[in-house]
Amino acid sequence: MIFKQIWEGANLTKNDGYFPANVPGNIQLDYGNVHGFGDANYGTNADKWRAVEDDFWEYRTNLVYDKKAGERVFFVSLGIDYKYDVSLNGEKIYSYEGMYKPFELDVTDKLTGDDTLTVLIYPHPKREGAPKGTRTEADASCKPPVSYGWDWNPRLIISGLWQDAYIETRDENYIGNVEVIAHLNDTFDAGSVTYTFDCAVNCVCALYDREGNEIYRGTDKQFSIENPELWWCNGQGDPYLYRWVIENGKEKREGKIGFRRVQLVRNTGAIDPPTFPKSRYYPPITIELNGRRIYGKGSNWVNPDIFWGRITRKTYDDLLTLAKDANMNLLRLWGGASVNKKDFYELCDEYGIMVWQEFMLACNNYLPRGNYIDVLTSEATSIIHQLRSHACLVLWCGGNELFNGWSGMTEQSMALRVLGSLCTIHDPEKPFINTSPLSGMGHGGYMFFHGSQNGEVFNEFIVAKRTAYTEFGVPSVSSVESLKKAIPENELFPISETPSWKIHHGFKAWLAESWLCLDVFKRYWGEPKSLEHLVEKSQFMQVAGYQAAFEEGRRQWPYCSMSLNWCYNEPWICAGNNSLIEYPAKPKPAYEAVKNSLRPTLFSARISKFTWKADELFEAELWLINDTQDKITDTTKVTVKVGNTVIDVMEWKAETNANTNRRGPTIRVPLPRESGDTVVLMLENGNGRASTYALQYVCPPELVPDNKPKTMNM
Amino acid sequence: MIFKQIWEGANLTKNDGYFPANVPGNIQLDYGNVHGFGDANYGTNADKWRAVEDDFWEYRTNLVYDKKAGERVFFVSLGIDYKYDVSLNGEKIYSYEGMYKPFELDVTDKLTGDDTLTVLIYPHPKREGAPKGTRTEADASCKPPVSYGWDWNPRLIISGLWQDAYIETRDENYIGNVEVIAHLNDTFDAGSVTYTFDCAVNCVCALYDREGNEIYRGTDKQFSIENPELWWCNGQGDPYLYRWVIENGKEKREGKIGFRRVQLVRNTGAIDPPTFPKSRYYPPITIELNGRRIYGKGSNWVNPDIFWGRITRKTYDDLLTLAKDANMNLLRLWGGASVNKKDFYELCDEYGIMVWQEFMLACNNYLPRGNYIDVLTSEATSIIHQLRSHACLVLWCGGNELFNGWSGMTEQSMALRVLGSLCTIHDPEKPFINTSPLSGMGHGGYMFFHGSQNGEVFNEFIVAKRTAYTEFGVPSVSSVESLKKAIPENELFPISETPSWKIHHGFKAWLAESWLCLDVFKRYWGEPKSLEHLVEKSQFMQVAGYQAAFEEGRRQWPYCSMSLNWCYNEPWICAGNNSLIEYPAKPKPAYEAVKNSLRPTLFSARISKFTWKADELFEAELWLINDTQDKITDTTKVTVKVGNTVIDVMEWKAETNANTNRRGPTIRVPLPRESGDTVVLMLENGNGRASTYALQYVCPPELVPDNKPKTMNM
Repeated sequence: MIFKQIWEGANLTKNDGYFPANVPGNIQLDYGNVHGFGDANYGTNADKWRAVEDDFWEYRTNLVYDKKAGERVFFVSLGIDYKYDVSLNGEKIYSYEGMYKPFELDVTDKLTGDDTLTVLIYPHPKREGAPKGTRTEADASCKPPVSYGWDWNPRLIISGLWQDAYIETRDENYIGNVEVIAHLNDTFDAGSVTYTFDCAVNCVCALYDREGNEIYRGTDKQFSIENPELWWCNGQGDPYLYRWVIENGKEKREGKIGFRRVQLVRNTGAIDPPTFPKSRYYPPITIELNGRRIYGKGSNWVNPDIFWGRITRKTYDDLLTLAKDANMNLLRLWGGASVNKKDFYELCDEYGIMVWQEFMLACNNYLPRGNYIDVLTSEATSIIHQLRSHACLVLWCGGNELFNGWSGMTEQSMALRVLGSLCTIHDPEKPFINTSPLSGMGHGGYMFFHGSQNGEVFNEFIVAKRTAYTEFGVPSVSSVESLKKAIPENELFPISETPSWKIHHGFKAWLAESWLCLDVFKRYWGEPKSLEHLVEKSQFMQVAGYQAAFEEGRRQWPYCSMSLNWCYNEPWICAGNNSLIEYPAKPKPAYEAVKNSLRPTLFSARISKFTWKADELFEAELWLINDTQDKITDTTKVTVKVGNTVIDVMEWKAETNANTNRRGPTIRVPLPRESGDTVVLMLENGNGRASTYALQYVCPPELVPDNKPKTMNM
Repeated sequence: MIFKQIWEGANLTKNDGYFPANVPGNIQLDYGNVHGFGDANYGTNADKWRAVEDDFWEYRTNLVYDKKAGERVFFVSLGIDYKYDVSLNGEKIYSYEGMYKPFELDVTDKLTGDDTLTVLIYPHPKREGAPKGTRTEADASCKPPVSYGWDWNPRLIISGLWQDAYIETRDENYIGNVEVIAHLNDTFDAGSVTYTFDCAVNCVCALYDREGNEIYRGTDKQFSIENPELWWCNGQGDPYLYRWVIENGKEKREGKIGFRRVQLVRNTGAIDPPTFPKSRYYPPITIELNGRRIYGKGSNWVNPDIFWGRITRKTYDDLLTLAKDANMNLLRLWGGASVNKKDFYELCDEYGIMVWQEFMLACNNYLPRGNYIDVLTSEATSIIHQLRSHACLVLWCGGNELFNGWSGMTEQSMALRVLGSLCTIHDPEKPFINTSPLSGMGHGGYMFFHGSQNGEVFNEFIVAKRTAYTEFGVPSVSSVESLKKAIPENELFPISETPSWKIHHGFKAWLAESWLCLDVFKRYWGEPKSLEHLVEKSQFMQVAGYQAAFEEGRRQWPYCSMSLNWCYNEPWICAGNNSLIEYPAKPKPAYEAVKNSLRPTLFSARISKFTWKADELFEAELWLINDTQDKITDTTKVTVKVGNTVIDVMEWKAETNANTNRRGPTIRVPLPRESGDTVVLMLENGNGRASTYALQYVCPPELVPDNKPKTMNM
């Protein structure tokens, strides 16, 4: 039986008294609430936590439980962030470094009837010699580096009992160390289920299909199942789950498993150069699920709150429901924010969202200093064991951008060799990659227009030829509603580089002007006339940019096999960000655009730039995109408009095979001299495959009919 | 005490009697000797072994030994090729699959005084369903695939007691399971030595320096040593070895260890592309030895005999002495031929030859069929334990060209994940790479001229920009002396595609015309006038080609960090081959050229083609190459000659820093109309840095002075 505890917290360094502490939670949040730090989302409040960054903290509770005869009493924790000692009545009974590994302590023989349990939390680890206040301080610990400051996460380092912790009384019927694993054979027509658990009495294992029919019931811990229903990712079929039960009359454990087989296979045509000296095929990055090659459609998931402790199942569900509705089938859990709570994976199992899970390494060189490799080994082993039975989990990855210049790691880095070995040993049926990007894959760009790089997002991905776009972004300013929650009213407009805008990543978050990107805005629209004007046009560009980038990635199938934008969500209110969804779960207009771009089948247009001028020849290459198992024959009515004026209308009848795109005609239409400000390409269709592309139209003053000498029009 | 045994062999399938069997040896060789197969090197004799390819074999011996009271009797084998049962007096006492793992069997309690020990060798494993007679048959076993037929190795599959096997009597003083490992810290100023062994009585451990001075003597199994002398590879310093001893008055074990630290580090400038979407730095392939970046100069070692069993320490020594003398510091032990006997590594330790050791995978897709992964795990673990203490061993590698189209493996292949994990677990201080080539690295070309590829070897490597050239070749026909041992006299000249030329890889070994490459010969020299003419010009081209390729690789330092030609040696007489050394250890003229190109410092010339015509502007870019730790200032006299006529003379004074090349001036000289047939560029120098480049000179008939109207010369 589980007994919730009432916890108090204290900042031992400041020695300013105890306060109520939420478990699960983060002690910094509790402390800030009591000490009037205010909403971290507002103004520069988040900076207030810097004053307690290096402090020692304590949780304490007077144990509450009801022990029956013959029962043992356990203190159970599902994970404590990050380095801590557990003491009972002043005696240290457990110490550990690492936030992911759960533990349970049999405290029965130490109980007095009036027992105080404390958890001492050490200051946040900071690597000796690392530049102060930078994320480099995170590079010798297994704590996800994001809270050390990122271009969309303020520096606000948290710790504490971020997962549940409680007292549990157990008798001989207790069922512990449960793991149920489904295995599918390589012809996808037979599965097996293996139950692992500890129990002092006999237990029965059972399996039920989705309708509740009993598939198996008995005492065998392993059995076979012929032609199991397969777990498919969103858009490719049902994410079919079976329910398993282990029970002994008194205790019962249950959960869900899915049968599926996943591999990473070579991307089609991503071959070595044709001339000597020859190199190699690019590393495989096409997901093959149950023998079917899948285009990975989705996004990069980040921590949905700067305070991880207060994340609930609802936090995940709101966001994952949106991901499912947006036709996404894959989320990359980026190494800087790392592993979510169990609810996340259960929901992904249900919704058919495949999970690419990274370990907690990002953008640093994690060298084998001190006890780093030992902690990593312990934490990674625990993570693999916690997650490997989930149907949703399709890929393990060492971490983010570790092979780039700004990180400095290589295949020879001990941390990655250890992670690869642990995955091979503990979860050999799933692929493992060292990092993203690997050779052939691409990260970036992250701007609508990037002068020093490949220019506009439109052309950038047409020119690029990558096996997978696993990060790319187009920023937008957040909604006015969100901005008003984050930026004090008197700073809202006109915008200048105030501390509030800066901490919310409006300026100098990455480049000088990111993420408000006023420079890019002005390039297209001149000075913003109002906050509303800025938000509207910025979001309009994000819509157009993501539409272009996602669809271009899909057009490059099967050479290219993934489009995952940076990023899906955000952990607090960002003034500007590449996210599709504002904190906490508010879709931007770009969300709808991406949802459309990720439909299983759609008519699509390859357009090479955003701004079109009067007298130019507008050009668009038509495509029918199809990642379903069906052969498609369909027709689209193609309309080009400037403002509300229809310029041209044509029709394209297209046919394409299963999981195959059809490249169609290029239409070319001279743009007239009109007074509108958009070119709109409409691919109309009655079967849900319609697409609309809204672009900027410019008619320079000298070309506007009314400005011309009258004689010219006669 | 060790007792050699007298062995007999039998072909159980043919049931044609017993014959004397050499141990170590190969039973097929013994059988062929008795049955008059003749010298495998001659004519098509090698084909005769096809008739016994699928046979069962037996070794037997009547045990000879002298057992004293209290001793135990062991049968010891250092490795049996490939799948076998060991029986004593008809009782099976051991079975195993795999040729590398040694074993020892305590047979004391089974001995009768008249004991017959037999080893049953199963037929060569062939993967079910693989095309018959092809090397693909090797892809489900851990037997090196080379003897299944390669373009320089006949199909002649061998097996048997290729390593020593004997009876050993042991008492309580016996010292077993010995391993002594030297560890060097990462500032290279302190080492430690760890002794591992089993012995029932107390032993003393000792360490001596090269001069025999005692560094340590005592009962500690681990101790530290301040500022040990470091082991350096050839050309970079002394390959300093310490001698270790373990003894107990009755028994003694000894060996040598070296202190050195090796890493693979990123190649200078081998960075991700500068524009988004960004990829990654190329995988590191620069060897850093004791903190110093090393240009890997060397070659690809193959099995020095088609019958591995008869390879002796002398076989290795003859070839390795040549490698050392040729300024080589690195040999790649290619996966198709795999692991050598212990003598090889001891000699490499002594000579400072670094060893890149591949596991026994090459050019196939090794899938996890049947017991493959189990055998691989057992064999690889044994190999790592046998070799990891050798100072010479600097790099583990999964195998050859596994990520290319013709193999089909990827980072996700279970065999490679297992090998990587085993190396990380059992030898974490050494780098591991999955295969060669990795991204950025290059294999090929393999021709002097290759029409469908990058043309001539001269330009091929100037155009290529690879981080490491780990295979590249220029073929030549073997010496007349060797050819006469291999090709029946009446077939020698004129050459046609007879079975003898073909089996010796003269035709259709790789491309239609390899490796005699008569088509390329004719392109430059017309029809061969005699065998001597063919050999002379072919070897002349090989000299020029290897000189160009090796020096171009070195000129690309530090972006490029290795030049290892394909191949160093050969296992039998090849009519033509890319080897530098003919079977068994006879250097070709190209050996001398490579020796020169690999000097620590030399004047070098980048020349873009082989054939120069009268009236052309001869062009060569001068370089001073230096991979020493010294700053060099030196002068070369530059002379261009056509035939014996000096055309131009100049001088270049160059200076360059340690481990740095100096790119110098490009000389340009109009070529006169002369009657010679070579252009020679001489970079003369009195300090051992001279180089000479001999190229083809052509003066078309219409340009030869004597053919012109006399008036033109007046």
